[in-house]
Amino acid sequence: MTLDQARAELKSRQARMSAYAHATALIYYDGVTAAPKGTAENRAQTLAVLSEESYRLSTDEKFIETLEFLDENSSELSEAERRQVYLLLKDIRAMRKIPMEEFVAYQRLLAEADAVWHEAKEKSDFPLFEPLLRQIFDTNVRFAGYIAPEKKPYDYWLGEYEDGLTMEKCDGFFAAVRARLVPLIEKASAAKPVDESVINGCFPTAKQEELSTWLMKTIGLDLDHVGITTTEHPFTTSFGSHFDERITTHYHEEDFSMSMFSVIHEGGHALYDTGSADELAYTVLDGGVSMGVHESQSRFYENILGRSRGFCELAFPKLVELFPQLSKYTAEDFYRAVNRVRPSLIRTEADEVTYCLHVMIRYEIEKRVMAGELAVHDLPGEWNRLYKEYLGVDVPDDRQGVLQDSHWSGGMIGYFPSYALGSAYGAQFLAKMRESVDVDGCLRRGDFAPINAWNRENIWRHGCLYAPDKLLERVFGAPFDPKYYLDYLESKVKDVYGV
Amino acid sequence: MTLDQARAELKSRQARMSAYAHATALIYYDGVTAAPKGTAENRAQTLAVLSEESYRLSTDEKFIETLEFLDENSSELSEAERRQVYLLLKDIRAMRKIPMEEFVAYQRLLAEADAVWHEAKEKSDFPLFEPLLRQIFDTNVRFAGYIAPEKKPYDYWLGEYEDGLTMEKCDGFFAAVRARLVPLIEKASAAKPVDESVINGCFPTAKQEELSTWLMKTIGLDLDHVGITTTEHPFTTSFGSHFDERITTHYHEEDFSMSMFSVIHEGGHALYDTGSADELAYTVLDGGVSMGVHESQSRFYENILGRSRGFCELAFPKLVELFPQLSKYTAEDFYRAVNRVRPSLIRTEADEVTYCLHVMIRYEIEKRVMAGELAVHDLPGEWNRLYKEYLGVDVPDDRQGVLQDSHWSGGMIGYFPSYALGSAYGAQFLAKMRESVDVDGCLRRGDFAPINAWNRENIWRHGCLYAPDKLLERVFGAPFDPKYYLDYLESKVKDVYGV
Repeated sequence: MTLDQARAELKSRQARMSAYAHATALIYYDGVTAAPKGTAENRAQTLAVLSEESYRLSTDEKFIETLEFLDENSSELSEAERRQVYLLLKDIRAMRKIPMEEFVAYQRLLAEADAVWHEAKEKSDFPLFEPLLRQIFDTNVRFAGYIAPEKKPYDYWLGEYEDGLTMEKCDGFFAAVRARLVPLIEKASAAKPVDESVINGCFPTAKQEELSTWLMKTIGLDLDHVGITTTEHPFTTSFGSHFDERITTHYHEEDFSMSMFSVIHEGGHALYDTGSADELAYTVLDGGVSMGVHESQSRFYENILGRSRGFCELAFPKLVELFPQLSKYTAEDFYRAVNRVRPSLIRTEADEVTYCLHVMIRYEIEKRVMAGELAVHDLPGEWNRLYKEYLGVDVPDDRQGVLQDSHWSGGMIGYFPSYALGSAYGAQFLAKMRESVDVDGCLRRGDFAPINAWNRENIWRHGCLYAPDKLLERVFGAPFDPKYYLDYLESKVKDVYGV
Repeated sequence: MTLDQARAELKSRQARMSAYAHATALIYYDGVTAAPKGTAENRAQTLAVLSEESYRLSTDEKFIETLEFLDENSSELSEAERRQVYLLLKDIRAMRKIPMEEFVAYQRLLAEADAVWHEAKEKSDFPLFEPLLRQIFDTNVRFAGYIAPEKKPYDYWLGEYEDGLTMEKCDGFFAAVRARLVPLIEKASAAKPVDESVINGCFPTAKQEELSTWLMKTIGLDLDHVGITTTEHPFTTSFGSHFDERITTHYHEEDFSMSMFSVIHEGGHALYDTGSADELAYTVLDGGVSMGVHESQSRFYENILGRSRGFCELAFPKLVELFPQLSKYTAEDFYRAVNRVRPSLIRTEADEVTYCLHVMIRYEIEKRVMAGELAVHDLPGEWNRLYKEYLGVDVPDDRQGVLQDSHWSGGMIGYFPSYALGSAYGAQFLAKMRESVDVDGCLRRGDFAPINAWNRENIWRHGCLYAPDKLLERVFGAPFDPKYYLDYLESKVKDVYGV
């Protein structure tokens, strides 16, 4: 094997893997958008074949030999190639430590868990889901032991979703957050409530669709490469490369702001993905590098930009044009309504300030279950206790409590902290961006170009070239510090509530 | 290799091929439904990979050995297995004669042609599409030469879409049709024109969507397995098996009948596909056997049933409910309007009687281009000349002329005659069905069950088990004869125009 041959194989193998990723993502997307309801089993048949082919493609002996050869000759490779080889080998080596029959059994468990979780959530019946959830936690502990016996299992999984993340880092982060957020929420809750009537009423879907298009254009998405459609739960997905990106939303006719900020949030994900340098397309470096950095972008656009006074002033005339009943309100009414602070039950509907506490509750539960300190059986009681302690709310049933998220049934343990970290990264990005960009002026003028150019230059174009911690270091020029985030939230609460 | 092993391989290989067919069909579907307009090149990348993998899967040495082994032991196989082996070997033997790189290049060409055709049609710019169309015709000639050098290229492709069809048979069929249709159209054109005002007006898309659902249910489609969406050009497609079928339509707010009959037409295709016996799923025998038989079903539902007096009487109260402005009309007005005969420009909007002439024009053009007697460059002029000669209409621009159909950009040369043949098969099916089913009574009552049961028993459930000519013989108990079709059309014109 010559170096040139190996490099060509590296490139073509990744291109082929991208094609399978495209097909697989599209089949899932079809399943939640256009597919008739009796067709899930047919999709499962196809996905089973494609995942087997794709697994073979990314793990066969010939490819491993190629990667190891390239690894031995890494000084001859470009920075991008070195990183591709590293990421591909890392995945393969992890995969190979899991006995095949256990891996297959786990896939089966997850498929069953998904169906059972849906039923359990609908019936608010935690005991129905409990045995499967216990197996999922057990399997995650066991797999972590196979792959990284030197680490605590939860540390391994945290690092899988956010390279370099550990319980120690999370504990420090959440302690800092908690120390300042809990009193802040108490202050806001004691203050005069914000009038939210501006966002409530009747807002026809067709008009909200117009709003979505306006928002996508305004924040700078390229509509030739980013599509939008509706699904029950909003998400963002790429089809094979960053040249084809789709976001989804869900319209609530009684409150236009839910879809509005969801579109900006998913739009942030899409800006990040589609901002990858074109030469990264059809490689494992294409698209966002980690969930934490991804959420830093989505929540940056949704909250830091989208809920700013400048953007509210920019959007309000458009809102009045689409929904004439809003003409009796002001942009300031709108700004205050979408920045109200109110402890609540559902994470995905939480406001910007209380959001982190929802995540912290999940983190504490995962940490203790993974360490064997909390039994899965006791999750609902612990969930409800923590919601009361941190957010002061009573959880009426498990549907609105411990069963609300799909992550655990999907096997994603260690994923939640990235939501909170992402929000905090975003505030530190803002501080850095302000050194060279007049962010508030841009927002008032509706000129996202300088903001997007900064993100593109510093974050987006790199795709997965740098590990998240290295990327943050490059951008911040200093360690990550949650103080930017907490300062930002305190100043927002002061602005809205005067406290 | 034991017989059991070979049979298992036959089954699993077809299941894997079905998965690729699913992914490929879905990517095309996405391209014409939800995809942002700048994403065609990305789809082309993925389709190139998938078609290469799928090609490998259906033509590799191991599989050919298996098929040849089964072929040698065909007396041990079921009728279905024998037919699978026959069809797969036939395809492989054809495929292997096409150099792999030419096959892959052709898939790429088609993906590009699809995008360019859309743009060319929109701009009415034939020269934009011309070089791609020339390559498509050239490739079809070249591929036919590889596969069946003993045949004329166009004969090869006619036979691909309708087993056994040749230019000789087409020439005979079209001559018979032309001899009776041209005078019939002249008579109808000279008669008192039908008042079409009932179908013209303003019919909101949302209401037409309700009509589509009602029509799909009424003709007996299972909405758990058949979806509908909108596209520029209506079509029907299966995803991996007959368990997931999609139809599309295009709404014209000024004339509801266009989408209405389009939905019934595509619904006929979907009834046929989804009517395959369940044990044929994930094999090459799943779905309709040929384009001609497929069109016999779609046009049977659209025209023979859908435009019958009985169905018009059934549908009219529903139409009045959806479009109250129709209350001043009668079902008879509607029946006459949707059976008006009027030479026109667009094939898909043509009436039942003039339709065949649209097909004949395409047939003549394809025949001459494939024989090298007509240059692609001269297509627009020749198209316009033939429309004037056969239908007496002047073509104002290429958008409404030579660029109107998607078939050529999709590489489907030799496909069009099956539309006309299918219409003619349908009339002969009707004659046969009437021997045991009270078709008119069923339509008046809105009871499609006996009609569908007859089609299912005689046609649908067999999938591709019988070659089309053999299937027709089984059902007709006599040779195919276009006289049933011409009798049917003459009687329709007499009923509507009294001539």
